[in-house]
Amino acid sequence: MKIGIYPGSFDPPTLGHLNIIERASTLFDKVIVATMVNGSKNSSFTMEEKADFLRRMTKHLPNVEVDTFGGLLADYVSEKGACAIVKGLRAVSDFEYEFQMALANKKLNGNAETVFLMTDQHYLYLSSTIVRDIARHGGDISGFVSEEIREDIVNKLYQPKE
Amino acid sequence: MKIGIYPGSFDPPTLGHLNIIERASTLFDKVIVATMVNGSKNSSFTMEEKADFLRRMTKHLPNVEVDTFGGLLADYVSEKGACAIVKGLRAVSDFEYEFQMALANKKLNGNAETVFLMTDQHYLYLSSTIVRDIARHGGDISGFVSEEIREDIVNKLYQPKE
Amino acid sequence: MKIGIYPGSFDPPTLGHLNIIERASTLFDKVIVATMVNGSKNSSFTMEEKADFLRRMTKHLPNVEVDTFGGLLADYVSEKGACAIVKGLRAVSDFEYEFQMALANKKLNGNAETVFLMTDQHYLYLSSTIVRDIARHGGDISGFVSEEIREDIVNKLYQPKE
Amino acid sequence: MKIGIYPGSFDPPTLGHLNIIERASTLFDKVIVATMVNGSKNSSFTMEEKADFLRRMTKHLPNVEVDTFGGLLADYVSEKGACAIVKGLRAVSDFEYEFQMALANKKLNGNAETVFLMTDQHYLYLSSTIVRDIARHGGDISGFVSEEIREDIVNKLYQPKE
Amino acid sequence: MKIGIYPGSFDPPTLGHLNIIERASTLFDKVIVATMVNGSKNSSFTMEEKADFLRRMTKHLPNVEVDTFGGLLADYVSEKGACAIVKGLRAVSDFEYEFQMALANKKLNGNAETVFLMTDQHYLYLSSTIVRDIARHGGDISGFVSEEIREDIVNKLYQPKE
Amino acid sequence: MKIGIYPGSFDPPTLGHLNIIERASTLFDKVIVATMVNGSKNSSFTMEEKADFLRRMTKHLPNVEVDTFGGLLADYVSEKGACAIVKGLRAVSDFEYEFQMALANKKLNGNAETVFLMTDQHYLYLSSTIVRDIARHGGDISGFVSEEIREDIVNKLYQPKE
Repeated sequence: MKIGIYPGSFDPPTLGHLNIIERASTLFDKVIVATMVNGSKNSSFTMEEKADFLRRMTKHLPNVEVDTFGGLLADYVSEKGACAIVKGLRAVSDFEYEFQMALANKKLNGNAETVFLMTDQHYLYLSSTIVRDIARHGGDISGFVSEEIREDIVNKLYQPKE
Repeated sequence: MKIGIYPGSFDPPTLGHLNIIERASTLFDKVIVATMVNGSKNSSFTMEEKADFLRRMTKHLPNVEVDTFGGLLADYVSEKGACAIVKGLRAVSDFEYEFQMALANKKLNGNAETVFLMTDQHYLYLSSTIVRDIARHGGDISGFVSEEIREDIVNKLYQPKE
Repeated sequence: MKIGIYPGSFDPPTLGHLNIIERASTLFDKVIVATMVNGSKNSSFTMEEKADFLRRMTKHLPNVEVDTFGGLLADYVSEKGACAIVKGLRAVSDFEYEFQMALANKKLNGNAETVFLMTDQHYLYLSSTIVRDIARHGGDISGFVSEEIREDIVNKLYQPKE
Repeated sequence: MKIGIYPGSFDPPTLGHLNIIERASTLFDKVIVATMVNGSKNSSFTMEEKADFLRRMTKHLPNVEVDTFGGLLADYVSEKGACAIVKGLRAVSDFEYEFQMALANKKLNGNAETVFLMTDQHYLYLSSTIVRDIARHGGDISGFVSEEIREDIVNKLYQPKE
Repeated sequence: MKIGIYPGSFDPPTLGHLNIIERASTLFDKVIVATMVNGSKNSSFTMEEKADFLRRMTKHLPNVEVDTFGGLLADYVSEKGACAIVKGLRAVSDFEYEFQMALANKKLNGNAETVFLMTDQHYLYLSSTIVRDIARHGGDISGFVSEEIREDIVNKLYQPKE
Repeated sequence: MKIGIYPGSFDPPTLGHLNIIERASTLFDKVIVATMVNGSKNSSFTMEEKADFLRRMTKHLPNVEVDTFGGLLADYVSEKGACAIVKGLRAVSDFEYEFQMALANKKLNGNAETVFLMTDQHYLYLSSTIVRDIARHGGDISGFVSEEIREDIVNKLYQPKE
């Protein structure tokens, strides 16, 4: 069984992430969406919230599983018996960074092949940062995140001006 | 009347910013230079200081107005009846990020056209970060910022070594 | 009156070009779409065909004019009394090249300000080369070029396999 | 059965191409390496030579098949029942172009997912152009192309100075 | 005597840094490796630790000297009578930033020529951030840093999971 | 004696090239400017004309020598006993291509270190292509090429419209 791992910080997950998950689910027998514990960045959402968001967004995809992990991605890939790391690409700066990470992961684990999928052009502008920004200022984030999780994101982030 | 909005953090405004403002003022009937309240980044200067700097730097440009705004840029554009967001481009990483923001703003407000102007080659190396760095270490920032505001920047930032 | 010039080789013009023309027509009082005589590249279409295509595509835009020009763009801008050159941006390599051209044009003609507009994300993949490629192999180019000119392009380019 | 198609001009195929083929062969049940008939570029090798080179280089990979095709890639993908187009990435300019092609192919054929694999760092410098250049001047191309085809490439390209 | 200065934050120094130092030592009569006091970023290692690491790593290179500096790089270059700043390049984003810094340094000190060396392809994936990440999670960093300093890095950074 | 080689097609040489030559002449004991015989591209100027241009432009630089070469750059570097290849950088696409060539040259000749210098910002827009274009249409190329060779370039390239 060919397993692909789609790691990310998903803070929160967007329709762009979902688009990559859907594409990956047609290429692999099983896709594990793995929320990273990211020590250095302050998350707006807890790991539990993110994993819950991802489960609700992907419940229509039977071969997708949601997980969380700390430690090194290269080790996690071995542990899960995966043949590939899946990454979505949007822009040049993404590409450069992901390229370096992919080389490092390959060095640490010879089996950790990185597979890049292209984000659908409708989601090229989308990032978790932009979603947080819009939600915080009371902008409309439908069309940016899954309907299932929209309200929860707004409830957590919206900061009305006094 | 065609109004263009030039948003930024201007921490502090440089001659590169002024160069873009001057170019924009020949393209639009009115240009609003808008200092963004940026919640996530620590500013070295207050919003009032920045707006004051910008006013002093642009007093020779009759169709330029200085303002401050919080909230979403797309909303601010609607509110002001502007037809375009003006952005200066220096480098590839600028371009990528601005491209994403422009797509997001267009999605949020169909009338928020983003117009990119090219920074004059004399100011390609200039950024607010570099100006802060030089001023902090007692370097000479004339040629980097407007004469009108140079002393105020030095007074605030210079940290003499003991 | 603020005049913008949108120069290009338009071989043939695509919906991406049209998108930039429409955006420019809201920013300027008049837009001149100018087909360049490009000595070094072999065109698939003649200058007359291209100008004709552009006229048919833009007949709904009253402030858009179609023209052809040889010589230097910087000179042409002076001659027309334009305040800006309009360019559409799609990708990093576009950007680099256009940046160099914009600096050179500014050097040759201090009034030739270049204004970059962002191609709508629906047309990010579009180029005249791709349209020619698809038409040549009998692929469907509707959705890539204006309905008005589609048949003429196919008639000229389609090369049935024997 | 998941089929991936790896298209290219392979003029000639290098160890960088082989590296991508080997990686793809672990991700898909079957990989079709497809030499494109490229009308606009003059090839140094005929389609038959290229296909022969690829067959000799990949004879140790049982799930790899070599083919040639004209027409549109999007059509070829449908015809073969493939689920993905495989592309190797080396550099930013590669990425930009491939990104555009991937968007165009997706538009022409909704099932033509493009999967990007990262060229191994040992082959980052390698391209068919560089191999041709070195062979032409009598440089040593072992370490750049498969041992099986090295002599044939040298015999065809080497131009001794008189 | 031609002196080159190789400035950096070296937090910690990697085999990629060593590779650049070795290359620079063949181009200049003397190379000064200068650890910058970086006020804005939190370092994992103290300036003394970094300088000590660099001295142990470069003890086989007689024309290499290790130093630390605060203040402006352009001033430091003058003070040391150096003819060039040496920088290693890995990726496009590196390049953009370094390009801006090099222009700014040239403006501040006309003699501060920046010379870019290309990181060996074996170290393209390497950065201090990646080393810290791997060490923190107990991954194997041999092959990423000099043998002489490996243990000290692990001792400082490794955070066993409870 | 440290020798640097600055290879190029110089068709024709510009003030941007001269700027790099001047910078290189302060870093190396001797700089060899080497016009490449480029088989695949049609040159506007002969190798003799280019070498003559370069000699006239650099006659104020006693440690600069002009030469021409065919064959592989890596071999030429060995033959001349040089320690470095010098390249000027302007933009991202330059960088990508030069990076690949530098890796290939290092592979062919372990001593062929490539040293990148940054083109002065006044010449960022300059390329031989742009100079040819302007000269061909009768534009003013002073400020783009050395005074010594300006007339010869104009005489060869100017094509008056009838």
